Amino acid sequence: SASRLDAQSLIAFSPEVAAARDAGRPIVALESTIISHGMPYPQNVQTAREVEAIVREHGAVPATIAVLDGRIRIGLDDEQLELLGRSPDAMKLSRRDLPFALSAHRIGATTVAATMICAHLAGIEVFVTGGIGGVHRGAETSFDISADLQELARTPVAVVCAGAKSILDLPLTLEYLETHGVPVISVGQDHFAAFYTRDSGLKADFRMDDAAQQAAFLRTKWALGLAGGAVISNPVPVSDEMPAVRIQGFIEQALAEAQAGGISGKAVTPYLLARIKDLSGGASLVTNIALVKHNAKVGTALAVALNQQR
Amino acid sequence: SASRLDAQSLIAFSPEVAAARDAGRPIVALESTIISHGMPYPQNVQTAREVEAIVREHGAVPATIAVLDGRIRIGLDDEQLELLGRSPDAMKLSRRDLPFALSAHRIGATTVAATMICAHLAGIEVFVTGGIGGVHRGAETSFDISADLQELARTPVAVVCAGAKSILDLPLTLEYLETHGVPVISVGQDHFAAFYTRDSGLKADFRMDDAAQQAAFLRTKWALGLAGGAVISNPVPVSDEMPAVRIQGFIEQALAEAQAGGISGKAVTPYLLARIKDLSGGASLVTNIALVKHNAKVGTALAVALNQQR
Amino acid sequence: SASRLDAQSLIAFSPEVAAARDAGRPIVALESTIISHGMPYPQNVQTAREVEAIVREHGAVPATIAVLDGRIRIGLDDEQLELLGRSPDAMKLSRRDLPFALSAHRIGATTVAATMICAHLAGIEVFVTGGIGGVHRGAETSFDISADLQELARTPVAVVCAGAKSILDLPLTLEYLETHGVPVISVGQDHFAAFYTRDSGLKADFRMDDAAQQAAFLRTKWALGLAGGAVISNPVPVSDEMPAVRIQGFIEQALAEAQAGGISGKAVTPYLLARIKDLSGGASLVTNIALVKHNAKVGTALAVALNQQR
Ligand SMILES: [Mn+2]
Ligand SMILES: [Mn+2]
Ligand SMILES: [Mn+2]
Repeated sequence: SASRLDAQSLIAFSPEVAAARDAGRPIVALESTIISHGMPYPQNVQTAREVEAIVREHGAVPATIAVLDGRIRIGLDDEQLELLGRSPDAMKLSRRDLPFALSAHRIGATTVAATMICAHLAGIEVFVTGGIGGVHRGAETSFDISADLQELARTPVAVVCAGAKSILDLPLTLEYLETHGVPVISVGQDHFAAFYTRDSGLKADFRMDDAAQQAAFLRTKWALGLAGGAVISNPVPVSDEMPAVRIQGFIEQALAEAQAGGISGKAVTPYLLARIKDLSGGASLVTNIALVKHNAKVGTALAVALNQQR
Repeated sequence: SASRLDAQSLIAFSPEVAAARDAGRPIVALESTIISHGMPYPQNVQTAREVEAIVREHGAVPATIAVLDGRIRIGLDDEQLELLGRSPDAMKLSRRDLPFALSAHRIGATTVAATMICAHLAGIEVFVTGGIGGVHRGAETSFDISADLQELARTPVAVVCAGAKSILDLPLTLEYLETHGVPVISVGQDHFAAFYTRDSGLKADFRMDDAAQQAAFLRTKWALGLAGGAVISNPVPVSDEMPAVRIQGFIEQALAEAQAGGISGKAVTPYLLARIKDLSGGASLVTNIALVKHNAKVGTALAVALNQQR
Repeated sequence: SASRLDAQSLIAFSPEVAAARDAGRPIVALESTIISHGMPYPQNVQTAREVEAIVREHGAVPATIAVLDGRIRIGLDDEQLELLGRSPDAMKLSRRDLPFALSAHRIGATTVAATMICAHLAGIEVFVTGGIGGVHRGAETSFDISADLQELARTPVAVVCAGAKSILDLPLTLEYLETHGVPVISVGQDHFAAFYTRDSGLKADFRMDDAAQQAAFLRTKWALGLAGGAVISNPVPVSDEMPAVRIQGFIEQALAEAQAGGISGKAVTPYLLARIKDLSGGASLVTNIALVKHNAKVGTALAVALNQQR
């Protein structure tokens, strides 16, 4: 063909993000799986807008990322966000799927791994999400380990999250990250966060409450040429936390039901999350929204600090 | 020493491959372990010639790869192929062994991992083989996982194969590839192929029957700078497939005999393959040759399509 | 800020190392965890000096590596070595921790992984230590695998060691290295060394008794652009070896006591090493010092040979 394919021809920036890039302003990447798969319409679109507004309020520009019309979209306009919010059959893209959604012109929402890749291609250093994937319970025999962890080991993006859901095996997740040299930095407490609850009971590698501290760490890491990103574990605010005993009970009940119902393999995680939402009478969704908004605040502060330490 | 060692001084192209490179023609890499370790002489040399002929017939240039006289040979002449075919003590080279065969001037046949490395050094994007290595049965406790899988995660070469042998643990192999972001693309069916049989019972990530589709996917992946290759799973033709129950029986019998005979560790795989060949009265070898030839056709079409989409 | 952070601004060379670099002389990196965590003061500082002297005697310049005052120190002066030797609370730095010790201005001793990173940043190709980390016993379920192994897979530094301690799972350690394409080269024997004893009972990938052979292998590997380093397994001299039955007994006793005492997780390894030292009446420390000195000789010969084959 006449024109050679390159990364930049596969990326399209929204006017807002393009202007921020030109002006050298801080930008925060946001994922889109939470929109297409995490919440029902229209709550998903509304929440996405609210999260974007929080980023703007605190001094950065939000860049929600998805694949539409054969391009990686860095920043979605109203129509695109609406389209994604109404497409529950959007592909859920990880590293292996990203080229497919582009070459086959499919609608795709980006997971943690794929959002990290796209953010890095777009020159964005901070990415805000709910929780990272991890080592699944039973991975000793199933080898079911999220591609998010390998992505953290190779792609230089800081992932601001509320830790990882305790339907995963959190001790094994931290061991895997340690083996692969991925730093886990906790904000406001010593322990790693457990998504619905603040305390996983497991120590993070470092505690850094200040965005300037976090930024200095990252600038040093990347100046050394050390591959990969970092987990910024930001616990759900106390007021939005689910009671640990309650969520633990839901998880154990859901796990028991999954086993009794013969649910296995890739069907387990979506089943567990749906059951937890039902069992909690929707409370898990409220907590999920609250923690993402809190992460947006913390992630924006980090993006601003990184910009100041450029 | 007077001249600094560099990659190009360690590589020697055959006249046919050198001419193809100069002319910008599509090239297909072929491995040599199948010649030195996979089949008896002179069947191995004859099969290698026939596979090369299929590549030429379909519009590309074959490049059989091996290490001879301290050089990586990209394309073997008659004498070199004969030498390799008569050297059952040739080293079987994986990533860790490749520099040794070169620096110690040993004869070496390249496995999937080493052929990928050499193909990439030679600027070749498509490599045709029988089957890839994978996660071995019992790897939960033995940690026996082929270096081929890590190679697929880092070296940008498409590996056209008939899936992986079912003496391996195929579900764990697919999980491992997923964790490391390696796409598994199936040709002509939805499921991952199981070498001697068409259907492993496991879904591949994508189905792409057309070479143009496969090429567009790969061009997109590599344009994004995404490390690694892809598995192109091309099932053995229906007419050459072994009956699933029959091959499964051989595998179980061979596994039982291995255990009863106290065969363990690295001795298990060669033992199983030899027993399967004997138990099948040589039928497994016939299937093996048929599937490699079929892969050569599919791989050549892919190389041609990649050349058109350059 | 006025000046952009870069790797070179984070590294400080001692006058001796700086002069060696300017003169193109061979340099051998030495780690500092053995000083801060491996031995009591003043034995640690004295041993460090003696190891450095061995490197000088055999024709290279030693570069002991640590983090002090926000800089990676390549070569320590008397005052710095003394400071490190008297700081038992120095951080033990692996890949994930290195940026923290720098950005937070902490005293840090470098493990195998972090020393490899720093050596590579400083352009040093050979690193001498006691033993590498590995796959821990029980890692099938604990996932406790040292970050040293991933570092060997990505950072181009030869690590001269006496193998790995048999408190680790050595068969699984070798499988893991094989999967990740890391060559294990044995010196003077065919088998992999087991730190306190010469023979792990496990075959290494290659035996290369001559430094020139080892250097030719490494030059070839790196000329090909193959990522990562190599394990140079140099067994403890016969005269300094601990009796295999005796050390095995200590290890089993220590393991049993750890289990009985409810010691688990990250506390296990330091507990085992301390118990082995006590149970052996200090003999394990004597062996440890002897093998490091022997490694310094072998590592220096390798550095000299690599320099000749530049
Ligand atoms: Mn999975
Ligand atoms: Mn193996
Ligand atoms: Mn560990």
